[in-house]
Amino acid sequence: LRERAEREASGLCFVEGIRQVLSAIDGGHRVEEVLLDPARLRSDVAWEAVARAQSAGATVTELRPAEFERISTRDNPVGVAAIIAWRPVPLDALAPTADSLYLIVDDVHDAGNLGTLIRTADGAGCTGVVVHSGVDPAHPAALRAGLGTTFRLPVHSAVSLDDVFDRLAISGITTVATSAHATQTYWDAAYEFPLAAVVGNEGAGLSAATLARCGYQVRIPMLGTATSLNVSVAAGIVLYELARRHPS
Amino acid sequence: LRERAEREASGLCFVEGIRQVLSAIDGGHRVEEVLLDPARLRSDVAWEAVARAQSAGATVTELRPAEFERISTRDNPVGVAAIIAWRPVPLDALAPTADSLYLIVDDVHDAGNLGTLIRTADGAGCTGVVVHSGVDPAHPAALRAGLGTTFRLPVHSAVSLDDVFDRLAISGITTVATSAHATQTYWDAAYEFPLAAVVGNEGAGLSAATLARCGYQVRIPMLGTATSLNVSVAAGIVLYELARRHPS
Repeated sequence: LRERAEREASGLCFVEGIRQVLSAIDGGHRVEEVLLDPARLRSDVAWEAVARAQSAGATVTELRPAEFERISTRDNPVGVAAIIAWRPVPLDALAPTADSLYLIVDDVHDAGNLGTLIRTADGAGCTGVVVHSGVDPAHPAALRAGLGTTFRLPVHSAVSLDDVFDRLAISGITTVATSAHATQTYWDAAYEFPLAAVVGNEGAGLSAATLARCGYQVRIPMLGTATSLNVSVAAGIVLYELARRHPS
Repeated sequence: LRERAEREASGLCFVEGIRQVLSAIDGGHRVEEVLLDPARLRSDVAWEAVARAQSAGATVTELRPAEFERISTRDNPVGVAAIIAWRPVPLDALAPTADSLYLIVDDVHDAGNLGTLIRTADGAGCTGVVVHSGVDPAHPAALRAGLGTTFRLPVHSAVSLDDVFDRLAISGITTVATSAHATQTYWDAAYEFPLAAVVGNEGAGLSAATLARCGYQVRIPMLGTATSLNVSVAAGIVLYELARRHPS
């Protein structure tokens, strides 16, 4: 499950930590197997999470400390890991209502950034996230940075961004791109819901072709010497402005 | 220079990449030595950066590809690294004016987060950053995530947060803490400048003692299932609101 092809073929992913296991259960995903190191697992909350997974049908396998360290990707493993049945949702599942807000992530390569983007979209009340190109949302480091939100929020993994834009247009969803070259700031723009905010690659931003498909563009004022912000920070700033302007 | 004690004793730090070297020069810091791999360094911009460092007095050492890979912390090294003379500024150097905006970072442990926080503070037009406890701002991964802004923005490394709060009070700087437990949102709060925004540890947030020393607290609405945002994202959202409310 360390390889994307393996995750996509099996529909399974690997997570570590109590919160991740609970989020998977709460999100309605099947926990296939819980791997635990009883020597490390001390809190009641942790044991309750294991019990919940087990009563939902998960196999529970106890590992010795050295075995757990081998499967863990953390410096200080908490002692619980799990195999979760999870697949991205189809595009149709992102059916909009009048106040829907989406995040579209194009070609983000850092798994930590992608997970943080999904966590941020959840925080800002997004209806769903579309991920195109770049890293896979089920990458262990993306799931880790998502802190379980990947299991709670509908996440679509798009093969073609053109298909996504076609579908958004049919559904009456306007699209706003975050771009360093936009003339209007995200403070000054008027927004119409349902709305999708679009963010791009860490270094290059959004391609000209993708920018051309977006309804309009906004920039975040850069008031110091840096020319850009981290993509998750930029998305958080724009999404929270959209959350504030939200009709509901 | 991989160890904090070594960096603090020598007043030197290690960076990789063209932008970092240029930011150090532009920030007025001495480049002690440039390490380069001529086989990797292809762009004119890169060679101009090396020339600027050299004319400012830096020693230039050419390494073989295998040697450069050994000193590099990157998967795809760009072929230029440098030893920079850099120390945090004294607290006195953060002298406020009527519209000053500071970021105070308490006990952030992830070096990438700290660098992203400094980059975000730069973007939002902060006057300076105070770092207390947690990871050291000259950590290579913090410098990397800061994309050179650490060399441009005054950064104070505080031994005692109490001393910082005493000094802020004397200077008439109000303090606003970001906390999940605050009653008012950052949207609704009134802000008075000069102002310092305070953010805390990735897991635990700010301690009760630190919250008690802050003038007031604001929370970021959590509109999904997550209970918190990444600290850099949270800081970005609050700092950009402060930048918008800024008197200038």
